[in-house]
Amino acid sequence: MEALNKMIQEHGRAIGNDIIKVDSFLNHRIDTPLLFDMGRSLACYFAPFKPEIVLTIEASGIALAITTAHALGDIPVIFAKKSNVVNKFSDMVQAEVRSFTRRDVHSVGVERTYIPVNSRVLIVDDFLADGCAAEALISIVEQTHSKLVGIGIGIEKNFQQGAKKLRDKGMNLFSLAIIDAIEDGQIVCR
Amino acid sequence: MEALNKMIQEHGRAIGNDIIKVDSFLNHRIDTPLLFDMGRSLACYFAPFKPEIVLTIEASGIALAITTAHALGDIPVIFAKKSNVVNKFSDMVQAEVRSFTRRDVHSVGVERTYIPVNSRVLIVDDFLADGCAAEALISIVEQTHSKLVGIGIGIEKNFQQGAKKLRDKGMNLFSLAIIDAIEDGQIVCR
Repeated sequence: MEALNKMIQEHGRAIGNDIIKVDSFLNHRIDTPLLFDMGRSLACYFAPFKPEIVLTIEASGIALAITTAHALGDIPVIFAKKSNVVNKFSDMVQAEVRSFTRRDVHSVGVERTYIPVNSRVLIVDDFLADGCAAEALISIVEQTHSKLVGIGIGIEKNFQQGAKKLRDKGMNLFSLAIIDAIEDGQIVCR
Repeated sequence: MEALNKMIQEHGRAIGNDIIKVDSFLNHRIDTPLLFDMGRSLACYFAPFKPEIVLTIEASGIALAITTAHALGDIPVIFAKKSNVVNKFSDMVQAEVRSFTRRDVHSVGVERTYIPVNSRVLIVDDFLADGCAAEALISIVEQTHSKLVGIGIGIEKNFQQGAKKLRDKGMNLFSLAIIDAIEDGQIVCR
């Protein structure tokens, strides 16, 4: 996606060999017109697969999930929540996720009744790095006996393992921008 | 807001005397058409105050902030992040927030450069209970020397202290739904 690649080149920052900071437009400060463009682009690709629910994970996946769901005809969004809240859910489907940037492991969950059996689910997230968040969401889809129609990503870091793992499993993965490498502090977009 | 009150009455659930669970349509599963209606309603009220930035807090404030910013002409959204991330920001403005539902205290922060001095900031959040999240965001606005033009809330729990504290300070507070009490397990909307 042209506008996103341009934004990454102009405003993205590489930290070391593996972290890409895009929080001036995507996951801290949000460029709202770009976010809606991104949602339309994901919706355009995934509409033929007829998703009924967009599933994402808090926190930074929520924004792109909303605009994608809007462009898909205002279908509902569900975001998996980190655990340990006082008002516990009655029947939670849970999965473990290791955060690449936070370097921790935590559990995320979705109230089972919000993903009906056989519903057609599209997973959306802002980033795909080592794929742990996506795998947790896939596990939630499996545990709810719903149907995964695809995985839509804002920025894919192709030099990490996530994208390869998901494509090797035959997943219908579509990323709006693909970063092939960080070379001498420069972000190399495909 | 009629549609929101109706949704609270039909799908909200009271837990004990103080917790209202609206996660079937607002902060876990999101009813996308309602969310966009809510954003339009907040924008309609706050547009005359000419906000330039919507400021919210992760995670559940993000969705309403996005639709409000969209309805205000696609102005940028900034969400305050919980701390302890590995890719530390360079110049963070921070504030403490006590979570009512999680019963913990944590620090949230915003990269200073994302809120320019004198910019006109609208705070948006899904819930207003004891007002701790709003106070943390107000502190961030003050520390960045920007101008707070108002506070837009999805659901105000008027029987807790937050709304009173903010109105006593003369804040331009506008809530789409106001809950006056939980009586015998019933949610009483104004």
